[in-house]
Formats: sequence, structure tokens, C-alpha cells
Amino acid sequence: MTNHEKNTEHTKTTMLIFGGTGDLTHRKLIPALYQLEINGFLPKDFSVISIGRRDKTSDEYRSEILESTKKFSSRNFEEESYEEFSKKVSYFKLKFEDAEDYKELKNLLEQSGKDENKENSYLFYLAVSPDYFSEIVHQLENSGIRTMDSAWQRLVIEKPFGQDLSSAEKLNASISEVFEEKDIYRIDHYVAKEMIQNTHMLRFQNAIFESIWNRHHINNVQITVLEKEGVGTRGGYYDHTGALRDMVQNHLLQLLAVTAMEPPKSLDADDVRNEKVKVFEKLVPFQPDTLNEQLILGQYSGYKKEDKVSASSQTETLVATKVYIDNERWQGVPFYLLTGKALKNKTAQITIEFKKSTLYGEEKDSEPNILEIKIQPDEGITLHLNVKKPGVVDQMAMVEMDYCQSCLYLFNSPDSYEKLILDALHGDSTLFTRWDELQLTWKYVDAIFSTLGEDRTSYLESYERESNGPESLDTFIHSGARKWWYRNREY
Amino acid sequence: MTNHEKNTEHTKTTMLIFGGTGDLTHRKLIPALYQLEINGFLPKDFSVISIGRRDKTSDEYRSEILESTKKFSSRNFEEESYEEFSKKVSYFKLKFEDAEDYKELKNLLEQSGKDENKENSYLFYLAVSPDYFSEIVHQLENSGIRTMDSAWQRLVIEKPFGQDLSSAEKLNASISEVFEEKDIYRIDHYVAKEMIQNTHMLRFQNAIFESIWNRHHINNVQITVLEKEGVGTRGGYYDHTGALRDMVQNHLLQLLAVTAMEPPKSLDADDVRNEKVKVFEKLVPFQPDTLNEQLILGQYSGYKKEDKVSASSQTETLVATKVYIDNERWQGVPFYLLTGKALKNKTAQITIEFKKSTLYGEEKDSEPNILEIKIQPDEGITLHLNVKKPGVVDQMAMVEMDYCQSCLYLFNSPDSYEKLILDALHGDSTLFTRWDELQLTWKYVDAIFSTLGEDRTSYLESYERESNGPESLDTFIHSGARKWWYRNREY
Repeated sequence: MTNHEKNTEHTKTTMLIFGGTGDLTHRKLIPALYQLEINGFLPKDFSVISIGRRDKTSDEYRSEILESTKKFSSRNFEEESYEEFSKKVSYFKLKFEDAEDYKELKNLLEQSGKDENKENSYLFYLAVSPDYFSEIVHQLENSGIRTMDSAWQRLVIEKPFGQDLSSAEKLNASISEVFEEKDIYRIDHYVAKEMIQNTHMLRFQNAIFESIWNRHHINNVQITVLEKEGVGTRGGYYDHTGALRDMVQNHLLQLLAVTAMEPPKSLDADDVRNEKVKVFEKLVPFQPDTLNEQLILGQYSGYKKEDKVSASSQTETLVATKVYIDNERWQGVPFYLLTGKALKNKTAQITIEFKKSTLYGEEKDSEPNILEIKIQPDEGITLHLNVKKPGVVDQMAMVEMDYCQSCLYLFNSPDSYEKLILDALHGDSTLFTRWDELQLTWKYVDAIFSTLGEDRTSYLESYERESNGPESLDTFIHSGARKWWYRNREY
Repeated sequence: MTNHEKNTEHTKTTMLIFGGTGDLTHRKLIPALYQLEINGFLPKDFSVISIGRRDKTSDEYRSEILESTKKFSSRNFEEESYEEFSKKVSYFKLKFEDAEDYKELKNLLEQSGKDENKENSYLFYLAVSPDYFSEIVHQLENSGIRTMDSAWQRLVIEKPFGQDLSSAEKLNASISEVFEEKDIYRIDHYVAKEMIQNTHMLRFQNAIFESIWNRHHINNVQITVLEKEGVGTRGGYYDHTGALRDMVQNHLLQLLAVTAMEPPKSLDADDVRNEKVKVFEKLVPFQPDTLNEQLILGQYSGYKKEDKVSASSQTETLVATKVYIDNERWQGVPFYLLTGKALKNKTAQITIEFKKSTLYGEEKDSEPNILEIKIQPDEGITLHLNVKKPGVVDQMAMVEMDYCQSCLYLFNSPDSYEKLILDALHGDSTLFTRWDELQLTWKYVDAIFSTLGEDRTSYLESYERESNGPESLDTFIHSGARKWWYRNREY
């Protein structure tokens, strides 16, 4: 997190975006680059080559992204500074499977990078369908781009990285023929969200939490990532993926790791990721005989009629699962993970429920202390305390202490992609997923699928759109914990 | 705190206020009684006899207190409900040293209390100069009032209770000839302030604080009670008293006890006070050889010219002292007590400075966690946390999480006297000072005086009105802790 490389005047950095005309580039990457530029974070000599299959000039491309940047830029947009920025962006036409096109790309790179006083660096950003990951990487190798003289070459890959352990292994093996692990930056944009990064600080820079962050003081942890939208236009992709693969394997298990990991030896990328891996290694494997206590799968009513969704789909659009970590810190503490689509609330938060005070018995009106790390839509931290209700009669009240980050910094909170692009440019891979993290999380999720078997009909509960999900969610949480704390909030 | 007696229909309660025409009665006692009445907390059959030396009818007295109640009632005043209330109040003329007057008082009590179906209870409230405490108590005995048939008779005494250990012992011996300790209610109105009562709840009903409330996690504690006013018209009293006797011996040491005591076995009055006494027993005695590190005395500039103050006065109007408690929980943790008059701020708060996180070394931008219990003028709790500053570069910021009680409950927070009168009526002495508490706190303060000796000129530092006190306060706190945290706030 702290080990950013220095950019000198002798460095020329080129970012190549494969999928330059795609949705992600328009909505996220270009607006993020623009923000980095106007805030002075981009390297001095920096350019972007957006690569797509379609025929268009750089000028045409620039006017297209001007529209997107205006529309999707989270903060202050200025025509003038945009002009400056867009001069750094050019368009290059390339078919992902055409070797000749890559040779031309190489010529272009050699032409523009021939200043002998400067070292070239290349960031290859694959904002394309996973089907092309392997293809593009090998074309970079075969065309000779990969072996061009350069200070560094790094590969950024969007999710999904595989559909299960075996496909992920296959993909990784293929990519690893061309790039070393240290140069592969696998994106999980959730990890770069402000409040997830903040969780790290909150845990390790606040002495009061350090000492109570364990099974002696914590009753349970609830990680909830809920969406209001259904699958929308993504039915084709989603129906082959489902919530376990789309959300649990990556985002939710990453949030769990950030919440649960031991303090890393240092804040260096590998020290941090080593500790996450240790958490994944200690996840208690899924037990087939306690399936009902550990897992709820839901599908929202009407899902099967969504565009490009199979009429007999068994895909889960909601997952609740109870996860245990078998180590000294967490033994016996359930981590409830809940994620789903087409629900009543859009909210993402990590909730820590501390054990109740037992000094004077379990008094009816005393509540456990609750720490909420709110990721979205609000960003902030809330702590629930028991206090005396003002008055001459002794009564207790539960109150909330609030740190509302989004209230204070609404216009400054950067998008995850700003952070991720900057870190990749600087060679800081802390917030990117290492291969062993992927391996272990796929293994965990694969075990769930193999327990469920081929026919999942009996496990799949239907729930209404805009509801809180299947009613069984209540029994699920009551058996161990108190309630779903996120429901305390009305959004 | 929870053991209120039941008032039945067979009880008739009479409160006798000695000093019924005095300032305290007008400003505090009558308005408090009125609030208790309109909120339905007073016993069903309840009356007040206000006793004074002056000649006046009950009607005259009622119209006088009508004015005071209007003026000093903290909350909603209504003419109509006041009418109802004032019918319960009568005036009785009595000279504190006149035995005949007490006999007449006895007659009155016998007359009004002769309903055979009811048991009488008497609350004697001494809102008079301490010179009369002993006199009145013995007159109650000699007149036979004390031995009248009754369910209970209780004595409420205002401070100051003595001027040092020996005078307090003398006074206590005298009173104890007439009342048992269990029936003596010594007032320290500070202890009844909402946020002090809340400190009890905060510590013992919030598991997250229970486990970090000790020397392993706390660096130091700061108890600050500051006033903007000088002595005003109270010069005659104050010049013979000074800040150590007027504030430290009672209020500040009580706040220290509430902050430091072990969890009591139960919430019963004696269990709570037993634990306070244990704290006072373990106060590390004052060391003559480290006087300068342990004590600062100040006198505000112009004090000697105040009304009824000696022109060569050596009375301290400000005290800062560093107190240690020699037990397992607190060994080595300094408690800084600071109180003074004619200062820049009016504020009372308890500040807990936790130890800094040492996980990644003492980083320049990391601050210790701070818990502030704000007593006045604002009531509330603030917790300082280190969080990540939103942005693509990793920077830390200290933020405050706030529970602002006075924002939420501004018009409901009762005055200390409401709570104290109600508790005395109910026989709950938790918030009143027991004799052994007094003994030990006087002993502690006496030791300071004997170390200082007769001539204190050399110890007394002058400070400007409306300042933060003598500059030596900074060195004083720097030598042990970081800074006076209350100064972070601007009132």
C-alpha cells in the first residue's frame, strides 16, 4: 500500500486498453484516467492506446469518450482540462485473434517509444470478455511485443477469472506462460472501495479495536452485499454464473479476508496477501450433512423470464452462507455472508456484533455493541452503544455514534478504478488478487457446488422482487445470531 | 440505582427544607420538585414545608417561589400545573437555634400527620450554611421530632461537609448522634449529572469498553472541570476554601472514582460505594519530593481585589494534579485532574486517552484513540478514530464519532437535583457520598495541604482571566501525556 515506485523523467508509460470501445472503458476506465490526470497523479509522460475491433479514427474515438467522461465522471468535469487529457488518448484498430494486427501494434509502440533517453513501460489492460484473455496474452508474446525492451510490462485482468477451480487453473497456466505472477494484476474492484481500504486502517491503526477483534469479544460477523436491480441485460452471462460465482467467490470472501486476517508483518503487497491467503486456508470446508444450516439459495420470482435466461434455470440469484474460520482468533465465530439481486435494499456493509456485556446478567434492555462499516450507498462507520436514557429513572437506550464519510467527503471519494489503475501503474499489487487467493476461494465455492449436486431444484427458494429475500433467512440467522443488522437501516 | 422503594397509598411523605428562603431552594429545589410533580414522580400524598427565619405567610412564600420556578425551571412551565403543585408547599417560620420553634414544628407535623391509616415519612433537607448542620440536627432530636412515629426519617446535607478531615470528623460525629449513616444523604450534585450516571452504563453495559478499560490499553485519563466565572459574590466563602477543597476533594475525586472503580457486585447503593471507596483507598499518597511534577496551583490575576477576598490571599483558584491509583487495573496510569475559575472555557469532561497502536510503529500521522465523556455544557460521548482519508493516496485522518445527548434530548435532560431528591425520597443512596468516601478524600487533600505548608506563595502561579491557566500546565501534561484534550474543543 505504501510502496509506490518513483516515476522519473526518464520513464515513458503507455497503457493499452483491450476493449477500448466497451462499456467498462467508457464508464469506468476513461473517467478514472481523467480524474487521475486532473488531480496530477498520472506519470509525466503517459499515453493511452485504446484498442478495439471497429474502424474509427482517434478523433472519432476522442469525441465518443468525451461524452462518456461528461456522463460518468464522478466529480468536477472541465472541458479545458479534458482537452489536455484527451490528447494523450489514441485509438488503434485490432482484431484480438489477428497476428498481423499485433505486429502493427508493435510497430506503433516502437515508433512512439524510440526516445533513447527514456525507458518504456507498458500496462496491458484486458477489459474484454474472458474468452479473449488467453488469446490476447499469447498474441502479445508471439508478436514480440512482450519481449520489447522495457522497464516493465504488466497485465491487468478483469473478472471473472475462471468459472471454477479447474477453468481458473487452465486460464492461469496459459497466462503464466507469458507473464510472471508478480506482473499479473487481477482486479476485484470491491477490494478497492474506500471503506474496504478503510477497514484495514480501522483494524490496525486503532488500538481500541485491535484488542477486541477476536472470538473472545465478537459474537458474529455479517457481510451483506445487496442489490435492488435484477439481472437486467446481463442474463446471458449471469445465468451461467449465479451469485456464488459472481459475488461470493470474489467480493464477499475478499471482504471476509479483510475483516478476519491477522495483522500483516508490513503493509507490503505480499505481506498483506499472505495474511488473506492464511484466512482462506483456514475456512472450514463445507459440510454436506449440515447443508441447511450453512446455506440458503434463492431465486427471485420472474428471474426465469428475464432476457437470455433459461426457462428452467436453477441459477441462484441470492446466497446466504455461514462460514467458519478455524484459527485461534475466529474459532466458533460465524461469518454470515449474504448477497442477492432484486432485493428491497441496495446496501453493502460489514457488521460486527460484539458479545453482550454479562456483568449484570443479560438485561432485557441491553443490546450488544455493533460496529457497522458501511461501504455503500453511504460510506461510514457506526458504533452502537448502550447509554443511560436521560431522566430521573434509570433506563437504558441504544444509540449510534456515527462517522459519516460520505457526508464529509461526498465529492472527493474516488472511484475504485482510480485507485486500481494508479496502483497498477505504480506496481503496487496489494489490492489485486494473487493466484493462491483465487485458488483457495474457488476451491471453497467448488465444494459447495459439488455438495449440491447437479439438480439444485430442492435447495432453491423463490423470493419476491423488492423483498428481503426468502423468509428462511430469518430462521437462518436466528439459529446463531440475533438478526440481520443491516435491516436496522432504511435506505 | 435500581432499588427504589415502593410508595403505597398508606404513606404520607413530608419534605422539610431548612433554608427555604435561600438561593439553593429558589434556584434548584423548588424547580426540581415542580418538575418531579408534573412528570408524576412525586409520592401521592406529598407535601413540602419550607422553613426560614423570616416572617411570611405561606401565600407570600408561594408567590415568591412562583417567580423562581418560572425563572429557573429548566423545562416546560405551566401556570395551571404549578397551581396544583404549589398547594403542596407551605411556609414555616423557625429560628435554627430556637428550641421553642422546633416544638411548634413538631406540633404542626403531628397535626398534619395524624391520619391513622397512613405511615409518615420525613425528609429533612438542610439547605443552610454548614454552621447550622449540627445545630439543626440536634434540635430535631431534642424537640422529639426525631423520635416521632414514622416509616422513615432521612437527612439530606449539602456540601461542604467539613473543611478538612478533622472538622468533617467532628461534624460527622455530631450528626451521627442523631442519624444513622444509612439515613444520611450527603449531596455531591456533580455525581448526579446525566453524563456521570451515564459513565457507569457506558463502562458496564458496553462489552467493547469493559475489556479495554485498564492500564494495558489506557495511557492516561484527564478530568477537567473549568469555569469562566471568577468568585463573584462568593469571595467570603471561597477565600477560606479554594479549589482543592471546593472542587477536587468532592467533585473531581468523585469523577475519578466513577471512571476508575471496579465493576460493583451489584447496582445496589452500598456495592457501588464500596467500589468507590476501594479506589480512594488505593490513591497513591502525595509525594513531597515530587511536588512540582504532581501539582500546579494557580490564582487568577485580580482575584485578590475581588469582594471579601483578602488582599494577601494565598487561595488557589486553579488546581492541576496528577493522581495515581495503586491497583492491578490502574498501576502507572496518570489521572490528570484540572479545575479552575476565570478561565477561557466553561467545560466539564472526562477524557480517556488510549495507548497508540504499535503494530506498524509510531507513525507520524496516527493519533491515539480518545474517548470523551462530555458533561457540560454539551452532554455526549465522542470517540476519536484513525481512518483512511478518502483518496487514491493512502493517508490517515483522525475523525470523531459523536453521540450528542444534548442534541437529542435538550429539553428532557433533568437537573441533578431532580434525580437526587427523587432518590432520597425512595431511599436510594447510590449517588450520595458515604462517610468513608469523605474520610478518604479529605485525607488525600489534607496530605497535599500539609506538604505545601503554611506559606504557599512560592507554589502559587498567577494566570490571566479568560486564559487557559498558567503556562506551566503545558509542561505538566507534556511530561506525561500528550496534551490537554479538552482544548481540542472550542466552546
